[in-house]
Amino acid sequence: MPTAEAVRIHTLGPCTVRSPLKLSTVWGDGVANFVGDDARMPLEVEVNTGRPRSSEAMFEKAGPRERIYFDPPATTAAIVTCGGLCPGLNNVIRSLVLELHHHYGVGRILGIRYGYMGLDPANGLEPMALTTDAVDDIHTQGGTVLGSSRGPVDLDRAVAFLRDRGVNILFCIGGDGTQRGALALANRAAAAGHPLAVVGVPKTIDNDIRYVWRTFGYYTALEKAREIVTCAHVEAKGAPRGVTLVKLMGRDAGFIAAGTAVASQDVNFVLVPEVPFVLEGPGGLLDCLRQRMERRDHAVILVAEGAGQDQIPAGQQQRDASGNLLHQDIGPHLAQRIKDFFKRIGSPVNLRYIDPSYIIRSVPADCEDALLCDQLARHAVHAAMAGKTEMLIGQWYNVFTHVPIALAVAQKKYMSTESELWRAALAATGQPAHMTGPQAGQP
Amino acid sequence: MPTAEAVRIHTLGPCTVRSPLKLSTVWGDGVANFVGDDARMPLEVEVNTGRPRSSEAMFEKAGPRERIYFDPPATTAAIVTCGGLCPGLNNVIRSLVLELHHHYGVGRILGIRYGYMGLDPANGLEPMALTTDAVDDIHTQGGTVLGSSRGPVDLDRAVAFLRDRGVNILFCIGGDGTQRGALALANRAAAAGHPLAVVGVPKTIDNDIRYVWRTFGYYTALEKAREIVTCAHVEAKGAPRGVTLVKLMGRDAGFIAAGTAVASQDVNFVLVPEVPFVLEGPGGLLDCLRQRMERRDHAVILVAEGAGQDQIPAGQQQRDASGNLLHQDIGPHLAQRIKDFFKRIGSPVNLRYIDPSYIIRSVPADCEDALLCDQLARHAVHAAMAGKTEMLIGQWYNVFTHVPIALAVAQKKYMSTESELWRAALAATGQPAHMTGPQAGQP
Amino acid sequence: MPTAEAVRIHTLGPCTVRSPLKLSTVWGDGVANFVGDDARMPLEVEVNTGRPRSSEAMFEKAGPRERIYFDPPATTAAIVTCGGLCPGLNNVIRSLVLELHHHYGVGRILGIRYGYMGLDPANGLEPMALTTDAVDDIHTQGGTVLGSSRGPVDLDRAVAFLRDRGVNILFCIGGDGTQRGALALANRAAAAGHPLAVVGVPKTIDNDIRYVWRTFGYYTALEKAREIVTCAHVEAKGAPRGVTLVKLMGRDAGFIAAGTAVASQDVNFVLVPEVPFVLEGPGGLLDCLRQRMERRDHAVILVAEGAGQDQIPAGQQQRDASGNLLHQDIGPHLAQRIKDFFKRIGSPVNLRYIDPSYIIRSVPADCEDALLCDQLARHAVHAAMAGKTEMLIGQWYNVFTHVPIALAVAQKKYMSTESELWRAALAATGQPAHMTGPQAGQP
Amino acid sequence: MPTAEAVRIHTLGPCTVRSPLKLSTVWGDGVANFVGDDARMPLEVEVNTGRPRSSEAMFEKAGPRERIYFDPPATTAAIVTCGGLCPGLNNVIRSLVLELHHHYGVGRILGIRYGYMGLDPANGLEPMALTTDAVDDIHTQGGTVLGSSRGPVDLDRAVAFLRDRGVNILFCIGGDGTQRGALALANRAAAAGHPLAVVGVPKTIDNDIRYVWRTFGYYTALEKAREIVTCAHVEAKGAPRGVTLVKLMGRDAGFIAAGTAVASQDVNFVLVPEVPFVLEGPGGLLDCLRQRMERRDHAVILVAEGAGQDQIPAGQQQRDASGNLLHQDIGPHLAQRIKDFFKRIGSPVNLRYIDPSYIIRSVPADCEDALLCDQLARHAVHAAMAGKTEMLIGQWYNVFTHVPIALAVAQKKYMSTESELWRAALAATGQPAHMTGPQAGQP
Repeated sequence: MPTAEAVRIHTLGPCTVRSPLKLSTVWGDGVANFVGDDARMPLEVEVNTGRPRSSEAMFEKAGPRERIYFDPPATTAAIVTCGGLCPGLNNVIRSLVLELHHHYGVGRILGIRYGYMGLDPANGLEPMALTTDAVDDIHTQGGTVLGSSRGPVDLDRAVAFLRDRGVNILFCIGGDGTQRGALALANRAAAAGHPLAVVGVPKTIDNDIRYVWRTFGYYTALEKAREIVTCAHVEAKGAPRGVTLVKLMGRDAGFIAAGTAVASQDVNFVLVPEVPFVLEGPGGLLDCLRQRMERRDHAVILVAEGAGQDQIPAGQQQRDASGNLLHQDIGPHLAQRIKDFFKRIGSPVNLRYIDPSYIIRSVPADCEDALLCDQLARHAVHAAMAGKTEMLIGQWYNVFTHVPIALAVAQKKYMSTESELWRAALAATGQPAHMTGPQAGQP
Repeated sequence: MPTAEAVRIHTLGPCTVRSPLKLSTVWGDGVANFVGDDARMPLEVEVNTGRPRSSEAMFEKAGPRERIYFDPPATTAAIVTCGGLCPGLNNVIRSLVLELHHHYGVGRILGIRYGYMGLDPANGLEPMALTTDAVDDIHTQGGTVLGSSRGPVDLDRAVAFLRDRGVNILFCIGGDGTQRGALALANRAAAAGHPLAVVGVPKTIDNDIRYVWRTFGYYTALEKAREIVTCAHVEAKGAPRGVTLVKLMGRDAGFIAAGTAVASQDVNFVLVPEVPFVLEGPGGLLDCLRQRMERRDHAVILVAEGAGQDQIPAGQQQRDASGNLLHQDIGPHLAQRIKDFFKRIGSPVNLRYIDPSYIIRSVPADCEDALLCDQLARHAVHAAMAGKTEMLIGQWYNVFTHVPIALAVAQKKYMSTESELWRAALAATGQPAHMTGPQAGQP
Repeated sequence: MPTAEAVRIHTLGPCTVRSPLKLSTVWGDGVANFVGDDARMPLEVEVNTGRPRSSEAMFEKAGPRERIYFDPPATTAAIVTCGGLCPGLNNVIRSLVLELHHHYGVGRILGIRYGYMGLDPANGLEPMALTTDAVDDIHTQGGTVLGSSRGPVDLDRAVAFLRDRGVNILFCIGGDGTQRGALALANRAAAAGHPLAVVGVPKTIDNDIRYVWRTFGYYTALEKAREIVTCAHVEAKGAPRGVTLVKLMGRDAGFIAAGTAVASQDVNFVLVPEVPFVLEGPGGLLDCLRQRMERRDHAVILVAEGAGQDQIPAGQQQRDASGNLLHQDIGPHLAQRIKDFFKRIGSPVNLRYIDPSYIIRSVPADCEDALLCDQLARHAVHAAMAGKTEMLIGQWYNVFTHVPIALAVAQKKYMSTESELWRAALAATGQPAHMTGPQAGQP
Repeated sequence: MPTAEAVRIHTLGPCTVRSPLKLSTVWGDGVANFVGDDARMPLEVEVNTGRPRSSEAMFEKAGPRERIYFDPPATTAAIVTCGGLCPGLNNVIRSLVLELHHHYGVGRILGIRYGYMGLDPANGLEPMALTTDAVDDIHTQGGTVLGSSRGPVDLDRAVAFLRDRGVNILFCIGGDGTQRGALALANRAAAAGHPLAVVGVPKTIDNDIRYVWRTFGYYTALEKAREIVTCAHVEAKGAPRGVTLVKLMGRDAGFIAAGTAVASQDVNFVLVPEVPFVLEGPGGLLDCLRQRMERRDHAVILVAEGAGQDQIPAGQQQRDASGNLLHQDIGPHLAQRIKDFFKRIGSPVNLRYIDPSYIIRSVPADCEDALLCDQLARHAVHAAMAGKTEMLIGQWYNVFTHVPIALAVAQKKYMSTESELWRAALAATGQPAHMTGPQAGQP
């Protein structure tokens, strides 16, 4: 559990401006209220009676502050979207713009083009003016109207770029790499004497950012993945001894694969990065699959892209320029191993492999994600207008909170194999908790 | 805040049977854990620093218990679905059956036909045998394979019916009326010396049951409602001075209408039961609508069916046999008033009225609801197998809990006008917080 | 069968300009060909061996002409959309613009606002400039970016309006009323010495324009209607003795209702304007429905809005200002009659009534309609550029043709009760061919 | 053009049984009519005035015959589905069963399991009884409840299998290979003295069977492919210099790729088997793509799996056991070539590759295909009951006809590059008609 210090939110300075929002400060008058900095959400919520509390740390609740730091008409905000596409990016952009413009009256809003690339003058990408007209219909489309890119930001050039354009607030929509960049940018701007509120909106279709209960786009991705599993199931049942293998996103975390398995109920094996498995031998995946085929004659297997990396022979592994092990493509490898195994034991299967790749991430946000994006964006505006910085909007349980970026990116979020989601995935698939062969110590 | 006593869960007796589930009791071994009765979720979660806690009451967490009350092979469970259709009913039925059969090994599972009607021998409706084959594909279809009905249950006949068939566990899927019936049934069975675990799965598309953060089907309904709002928006923009009025479900609570307004972002006015409004006069709805039309020349209005009942002249109000005021159809009334108003002021509008009625509730569950239904059902089984009764599965924040039925049905859940959802709805529509005319005291 | 004269296409004059399209004039070179005026599609296609042909009339085939009438850079085209919304309007607009601009190089394209209203200077609606940017994404949205309206056009003012703006070509997208207006406009322009090519793109969601095999939007409407029937079916099966009645569009023709019944396969009775029925008595609808309920205990009924008008008591009928009989709302009337009947015979039903109204017409075009719209639009451009006028793009069998407006609007298209569609609808529903009671002469 | 003899339909013998269908024989009585064998559809329909007709051959029209060959109660029908999955298979099965059972009163209907495999007793696959209950809901699911497989049929064993089970009619749902097998089976049965009506329902998602205007499943596949192109477009616009390459089905014919390009309007290059192209050099694909990127900075490319096979270096080509050239995977090859090219010229692109594979074929039929499947199935029943054999149900223009299998499979249907579809695809993409480099003779 982090300390109270670790959850403290940085601010640019005292809030001396009265918020233009028409909200109340008392409960019971039927008008929504401003939220004070004293409204908190404890990190330790659940209780085991008889055991003492282990932490007193508390997140600030997100919400509109009665006093703000920036004078809206004199403020310029900028928005940048980084990394891979994710359903809901346009919804976040749109609600940021509408909240800034309609409710706070912020004078000028810029859209940085193509991620951090657009902050580097070397790339010659002038920001878009984000007027309400420019964002009117964008939430009905997938992707991001700003464009996105991967890669780091040159801090000095970016600070100069923002200062030259008078940007006071920067909203960074992106994953952990993006947020690390955002934090560095805030520090460099401070060092350069340019007060810049940097507020992150966490974006990861893999749902793998800590202190963020569910990231936007995750449920939309599940919905598309479920459609594909339905196809996989139809294919598996449509052929004699049909096996369909579907690869889904999830480099380090199995949330998408596990969630899809539970939502779909048509999956028989789900393989995630967090749960090692062996292929061969009694109790291995192939043996379990053989048993399944004997019982039901068809099977659907989901594999997260980061699962089973240790199953790929060393000779096929690749390292990148820095010597890091690159993820191997587990999908075709597994497909081949399954085909070979059943051929070897004399009962070949009709294996079909589906890799939906970008299809599950470039669609518009579904309703839940649309709601979530709207709320994230408006909370990000409230925080930024109050001069809070080096933070992102998190959700602790289902409460929107302010989380220091440094805390959120210190470690990735993984799906605990003792979590309710994984228990549900095991229940829905009926697969063994462990497919690590006979040597594995089973409970 | 309820007392500690009010949240206490009733049980049929001590748990002496070892659970057949292959779960662990220690954290850190990578295997999902049993949940103890000492795992709790406090009712008061959020904190205002400086203010003392107001309640120490805590909900039991839901989850599989290590020791259970019923001997699975000797147990008969029954499932009944009551009230209006709701996306996800078949998912709940299916996961109840699969968890009971595959994981606990319960001997026999019955599906009661057409709600509480099916518990009355007078109706001659013999229960269905709910085998795994019978439920194999049902989650892909809307509605309920058991059928449903409204109306009370004859307690004595129902107890006899259940006792005759050796039913030990009854899962009641329904709204507050159904849960009240379930509680009465549990009491009557106890009085009759037939120990019956009655566990509710709360079902209300209106999302209006207390201590249940979100009910299954709600998000699916939003998704369909959002589609219809998109049509309404297209119609409003497609005609000169186009106004589209859409009526949505929500007799007493505006969750569907407000959620749709936020998710869609194309709504200009949303009218809910919790927020009174006047039509005529400065600051009334018609005046606000006139201003909107002057600015933008088209408008979309959402009205929950229970909104604005006081706007309907007394002469048109009707009472039922018991003298209760019946809800009037606000939709056509409002449509006519809007048409008349704009005709009167000399700038007629093209008003179109859409009443999607059952269309938003008879569809299959979307992904998020499918996940929720699976978890609700499995938690309901865990609770029932542990002999817990007179309770339903709730969600406090996003944690599944056991909630005494008596507590859950004591009062309906309304959407607070000081809630984040309503604040978001006002932000998304841009409508005034109050449309009660000049006399209303505004903040 | 119309005469050869009746199918003759009017032109503004000889084609002296070489088409800028890069097409071929010979078959076999692998390049698509120009189409000559001598390419024809006979009106009488099918043959009954032994019987002589009854007509020699032939439609001109649509397609790009090698020689055209207008000099593209010097030409101004205008587009107007009239009447009710229909899936695909934006697709037609977009493909008209792209074909005119990219392929012919037409200098200027205007979008008339809100139907024929936009041709009357009194309404102060200046046309939009339809650039390729302006239409870039519009095909992904339902409705029409131009707006639409019903009602006639003031011919003199419209001709002046078009002449003042130098419009040489007018594309009129609309139903039979619109096409009649288009024909009158062409005549008046000619009389006024302003040569104007008027080319119609037939638009009727009801599919009721003659010589047009299927109109755009029809299949999309079926798709939405089928979704609603699925809901209706779920509702009917979800309640004891459930009957769902769905009202669909179709004032004079039953194509939507019959097509939906066949596509859905879940409909038990489909009522269309072309097939009279009685309600009461042996062999009437209520009697047939009673038999169905005895066999299967649930039923789905589709009624086209124009069906069964004679079943509504005279006292409830209304006439418009001109004394024409207004269509009565058959839906609620039928719902009440069904409820009353089953109550009377002592076995009440759970009747639910669904009126999807605008929902089926304001959605974006499905794939088949998108293809059709693109082809209709490009053929309309080819015809107009060749100076053809007073015509619309038809489809005879599945071949695009030029049809004189006068011929197309001379009579509405009805669904023949001897057609393959109606035979399929009877086969799919299993309903009797006649529900006119015992007095009806049955085959 | 085929001869009159080539279109003649074989029959098992004279029709002596009166059809049980309640149809009429006269036009104008409001009751749908039987269709006589003298109702014909000429093969040459369109006319070029001044040129003589080239053929007098005419197809029989499909439809219910007044006199039939089989005595329904004494008849056993069997249904087999072969080859790859295709949207609508279950619809065809269901309508075959319902028409046979409800309308003709055929005594027994068998469902052959897993394609022609199920006709070989060696595989031990007993047919399913296809009752109306068994097919009740199957049209809502993709795939085929019978299962399918590829591969030939052992004629003698299959004839014995069918004779042993008293099968008089066999409906073969499949592509050209399947239909060839069906023809051989009919011949062998006749030779063996077992009169067997063999009627084909053509199934090819590629739409490549001659005399069949559009095959079922094609439009549903377009719809799914269009969704994927929308994602591809979003991806291309979401990254700096984004290029998305999508591979679609179409081994020998480009109908799916071309149709998707027209329906989507977001495709910039579509590559089909019928149109050769070169990659390198001025006027080649890479050069054209470079120009596109310079103008618009993003691009979407569709490639049919059978396109550009000659672009793959010989060393990478593979032959199967019979020495036939196997299709190479053009997708990854093209992706690599594009990446390499832009890297080489110093302006690298962000290339994303999407291979939706089975996703577009395992979904349920959309509305148009559902309608088509119902009609195909009922026409197949009418033909079979009249003792017609060695034929399949075709569509000439949009009229259902009887086509001898021998004629239909004599040659594959290709998309003519002089067809309206390809002209529309070129218009929609704006790509050059030829990308074969400078040496190509252009019109």
